[in-house]
Amino acid sequence: MVPPFDATAAPSAAMTPPATSPGERAEPGLVAGTRAVFFVSDSTGITAETLGSALLANFPGARFERHTIPFLGSVTAVDAVVARLDRSAAQGTGDAPIVFATVKDAGIRGRLADAGAVVIDLLAGHLTELEAELGATAETRAGQYHGLGDLEQYFRRMRAVEFAIEHDDGQSGRDLASADVIIVAPSRCGKTPTTMYLALHYGLLVANYPLTDDDFPTDGLPRIVAPHAERCFGLTTTALRLSQVRHERRPHSTYASLAQCTLEIRRAEDLYRRTHIPFLSSATRSVEEMSAVILQSMNLRDRPRERPTP
Amino acid sequence: MVPPFDATAAPSAAMTPPATSPGERAEPGLVAGTRAVFFVSDSTGITAETLGSALLANFPGARFERHTIPFLGSVTAVDAVVARLDRSAAQGTGDAPIVFATVKDAGIRGRLADAGAVVIDLLAGHLTELEAELGATAETRAGQYHGLGDLEQYFRRMRAVEFAIEHDDGQSGRDLASADVIIVAPSRCGKTPTTMYLALHYGLLVANYPLTDDDFPTDGLPRIVAPHAERCFGLTTTALRLSQVRHERRPHSTYASLAQCTLEIRRAEDLYRRTHIPFLSSATRSVEEMSAVILQSMNLRDRPRERPTP
Repeated sequence: MVPPFDATAAPSAAMTPPATSPGERAEPGLVAGTRAVFFVSDSTGITAETLGSALLANFPGARFERHTIPFLGSVTAVDAVVARLDRSAAQGTGDAPIVFATVKDAGIRGRLADAGAVVIDLLAGHLTELEAELGATAETRAGQYHGLGDLEQYFRRMRAVEFAIEHDDGQSGRDLASADVIIVAPSRCGKTPTTMYLALHYGLLVANYPLTDDDFPTDGLPRIVAPHAERCFGLTTTALRLSQVRHERRPHSTYASLAQCTLEIRRAEDLYRRTHIPFLSSATRSVEEMSAVILQSMNLRDRPRERPTP
Repeated sequence: MVPPFDATAAPSAAMTPPATSPGERAEPGLVAGTRAVFFVSDSTGITAETLGSALLANFPGARFERHTIPFLGSVTAVDAVVARLDRSAAQGTGDAPIVFATVKDAGIRGRLADAGAVVIDLLAGHLTELEAELGATAETRAGQYHGLGDLEQYFRRMRAVEFAIEHDDGQSGRDLASADVIIVAPSRCGKTPTTMYLALHYGLLVANYPLTDDDFPTDGLPRIVAPHAERCFGLTTTALRLSQVRHERRPHSTYASLAQCTLEIRRAEDLYRRTHIPFLSSATRSVEEMSAVILQSMNLRDRPRERPTP
């Protein structure tokens, strides 16, 4: 049983370490040829995981066993983490574990450096470069990129996620005029996760609308989205990929058949071309890549900051 | 009008540069005392934005004007970006722009280094460290952290987002037994964005359930979630913050009154303590921080990899 967090105490004290503290956990034996990797952070660990994973992706021949240790120094005790790294170094192949660290406190960084691990410091070196360039000392207690932000930003994000839920899969035509983007596509081309990513990370109001057989008899976009054509963005994919994805939902259905998928994809792409709406294939792209292309092509990167406060 | 992407062409060729290419865009005049910052990437730019912003957050006294240039070398022409950086350096205060770069191609990195900008290379140095440690050469064409991943991973993510939408705000009790976490809280404590973040980034099945006045007459958790108490996680906040957030939705309502908020928060925290479910205050935490605490305290970090393929 995880002990309850005491929400009434101060922020950092509120996060009582779980009964099995991540710093004390016994390491499972490493598979031969696998290197232990730790993402260690005094905050959420998201930055360490993101950049560390981006770096490791360049070594496709190597195998890694990944562990994330967040909130080091507040929730997670430094001693226990150093001991865990030392244990990891002593076992298996004997290769020192690799640590991707985003730790601001110089004292804690020093302790980590003493562990039997290869520490790749993702913050400190660049902070020094920035200090030199900006002629200012980094206030390492001030910065918290994944911190709270202001209330307005919080409202925008909450509103965006709620708008996305309300307008998922054409559920509501209400307030479609407020949408920053309307993603249109046949079923299972990736509308929903892309919508959610844009809402959550950029605070954009994103609706999505399915293109079903019923929408194709006419020459244009579905009636509800047609007045907003200039804010529409289309998704497509390959018929083979679409069929795979649909089989996962409804195996051996007409819906998932290659013939049906081929037909729907061809009709959708024809529609996009005829109505001059930009479109993109999700077949070879992640949700992040699709979101980045949509932001760029619809010129939406700076939009949230321009939106007037309500 | 943004030209349509040709989805049938090869991935990189498919992304025709928008009519106003980001590399060619004229810079708006900088406000005095503001430093131009560019996040430049040959991929989505997400890693550059994440780490670059984390670094800048340590200089709260400085003002930055941020620009993201993704897909450099494929969609975005290098020459135009170098020219844009040079223009930026020449205008305003005359301070060189700061560039956070995640560019793998050594040739493109070399070109960027020649621009009149301070280039902070977020990848190359660390790649060299890793090469030395792993005794392998980085295959910079292989790695794409924000790339597609495998189909199973894609399915999991899609399923997770759909589960989150279906189970938002107690809408459905169906299949609640499959949930990895059930977030419970009074209205407007941050259930929905936290749910979506966990679903989108960790592929977890997350439901959320509101605690309304009706749920409090009894001694325990709401009837629908009670059988799953060991997977429940509670959110709370301060009455003042809750009142602010509710005023934004329904100004001057009883719902948003400080008295009502005080009452609901007290009841919710009492319930969490009585039923021994872990909880956390969203008053001083971002969605990312709450997600990281929930992952850690519920021991969910490695869960998706353990889930059997369907």
